[in-house]
Amino acid sequence: MAKSPEQEHPVKAFGWAAKDPSGLLSPFRFSRSSKCCFVGSATLIFNIKNEWGFSQYPLVPGHEVVGVVTEVGSKVRNFKVGDRVGRMHGRIMPFVRNCADDLENYCPKIMLTYNSIYYDGTTTYGGYSDIMVANEHFIVHIPDNLPLDAAAPLLCAGITTYSPLKYFGLNNPGMHVGVVGLGGLGHVAVKFAKAFGVKVTVISTSPDKKEEALTKFGADSFLISKDPDQMQAAMGTMDGILDTVSAVHPLLPLIGLLKSHGKIIMLGAPDRPLELPVFPLLAGRKIIAGSGIGGMKETQEMIDFAAKHNITADIEVISADYLNTAMERLAKLMSSTGSSLTLATH
Amino acid sequence: MAKSPEQEHPVKAFGWAAKDPSGLLSPFRFSRSSKCCFVGSATLIFNIKNEWGFSQYPLVPGHEVVGVVTEVGSKVRNFKVGDRVGRMHGRIMPFVRNCADDLENYCPKIMLTYNSIYYDGTTTYGGYSDIMVANEHFIVHIPDNLPLDAAAPLLCAGITTYSPLKYFGLNNPGMHVGVVGLGGLGHVAVKFAKAFGVKVTVISTSPDKKEEALTKFGADSFLISKDPDQMQAAMGTMDGILDTVSAVHPLLPLIGLLKSHGKIIMLGAPDRPLELPVFPLLAGRKIIAGSGIGGMKETQEMIDFAAKHNITADIEVISADYLNTAMERLAKLMSSTGSSLTLATH
Repeated sequence: MAKSPEQEHPVKAFGWAAKDPSGLLSPFRFSRSSKCCFVGSATLIFNIKNEWGFSQYPLVPGHEVVGVVTEVGSKVRNFKVGDRVGRMHGRIMPFVRNCADDLENYCPKIMLTYNSIYYDGTTTYGGYSDIMVANEHFIVHIPDNLPLDAAAPLLCAGITTYSPLKYFGLNNPGMHVGVVGLGGLGHVAVKFAKAFGVKVTVISTSPDKKEEALTKFGADSFLISKDPDQMQAAMGTMDGILDTVSAVHPLLPLIGLLKSHGKIIMLGAPDRPLELPVFPLLAGRKIIAGSGIGGMKETQEMIDFAAKHNITADIEVISADYLNTAMERLAKLMSSTGSSLTLATH
Repeated sequence: MAKSPEQEHPVKAFGWAAKDPSGLLSPFRFSRSSKCCFVGSATLIFNIKNEWGFSQYPLVPGHEVVGVVTEVGSKVRNFKVGDRVGRMHGRIMPFVRNCADDLENYCPKIMLTYNSIYYDGTTTYGGYSDIMVANEHFIVHIPDNLPLDAAAPLLCAGITTYSPLKYFGLNNPGMHVGVVGLGGLGHVAVKFAKAFGVKVTVISTSPDKKEEALTKFGADSFLISKDPDQMQAAMGTMDGILDTVSAVHPLLPLIGLLKSHGKIIMLGAPDRPLELPVFPLLAGRKIIAGSGIGGMKETQEMIDFAAKHNITADIEVISADYLNTAMERLAKLMSSTGSSLTLATH
């Protein structure tokens, strides 16, 4: 009954998989049903090491996948061979709540690009592979002026930051938005917020990120979260904060930075609960919310917006040989600063 | 320089004050500048015992004050002797942010009805007293069909539950709203939500509250929060939850009860931080917010809505002799069930 990963599908593929929670990726032959380039972000460390508790091995990570279409099925309408595309999510149930509202990402029956069980009982494998098959519903067009490799992280970091800026009304020119952490999500958050005309303050534990935040990414100001004087001076000045930190960290100082009715949007997912002081929320009708990527329609909108404003992610292109070293670097970055680093593999 | 409480103002008053953090109230003579009836709610226990850390003794509690006007100043325009009125807040700074938007309650310079320092350096004393002086800006009219004593708690419990139902869009007929805790805030929350045409589920640790929730207050259903089967069956069914519990309690099961994009509004203020699991927020773009009472304009609107729908608080009228016994009862209720009990004193 049960087939091996090599036999499940007709098309043979080669990729890089985690076979246990050690965090190491090794060569892996499996089957699936086009030429891609693969990208990883720091959050996948949680999955490789099973820190969220639902990893299934062998696990082929990679959820920000871009490439060029090499073959299309007979019923595909919106894409042709040679198109530059990006792929998100796994397959989901049509007509389920949220899916019908273009919010596939919040579908209660969502299947992820990797580490999910497909309808036929097989496991979904991610972008750390030479080819990939996808339903066109989960494919976006990448405009010609966006380089594929630097656009790939936008499929996660881009939509993850663009969507909450819009949904929570933090995209109005003249608003003041804080971005906590200047990693994979954070630096893209700064670029999108600036493109919306918002005043951006980067909040970080690392003083050495200041130069990069202000000059490279265009933030308006920079706060050292560990400096009580700086934090005190900025109290009550922000309409909203995008918190990209995946490590456990205190919320109270961030709540203090908000104006009344301000909003903190959590985009990172620490593996342990954070401490939530309730009184400061009551005193200013403040909000702590979570947001996870975005739907396909909004993802295409985000990519088009990025193309218009020349927004790409800062990337470091690596070869597969370097994957495990890169993973170690990501894990260290996460535990020390809570930021993430975006890597692209070819 | 410093005057005694008896000398600060020209009008002599007699009230009941906490003189230290023991939680005991004793007779207290002071001065202030009309005949009132006084009401207390459980949250004042935190202040009497200095559990929020900013109590100043002697402290005369009481922030839900109703009465009949006995005297008006020459510049008072909207009230006359004999009017039935309620009083909220202390004096605030006009033209400060939020105040100008009828959100005096979120004014960064707010002065509370008690335990705040007034402009002249004197301490504000609350409603546990025979007379009270107030600026007309902080007075609302109480319609004739609302009994004064049962309307008094609406000035806190009423506006505290009415305001977030409106602000967070949880007042649309057909929505499903949960109310956690069936105390002073909770039972009023049920009444307002039902008046808006919302389906209401009461969530409580106490099975013996079921009958009261369903028959007396008109809730549509009742969940025992400690029953995993009941909670599991209700997962993902609620648009919002008003959480009135002042004791430390778990948020995770409540987050699970929400639909995607659902909102938990915290109305109680536990004295220690709660555990906030972030991943469940991300997975459903959910919100944890706080809300604290409401502005004067909305308070009048709430009182008029209550009069129209015959909403009053369930009260137990007590004499001042019974105050300390009542405080003990409140403290016990808070630690055991997290609910509050509303008491009125004459």
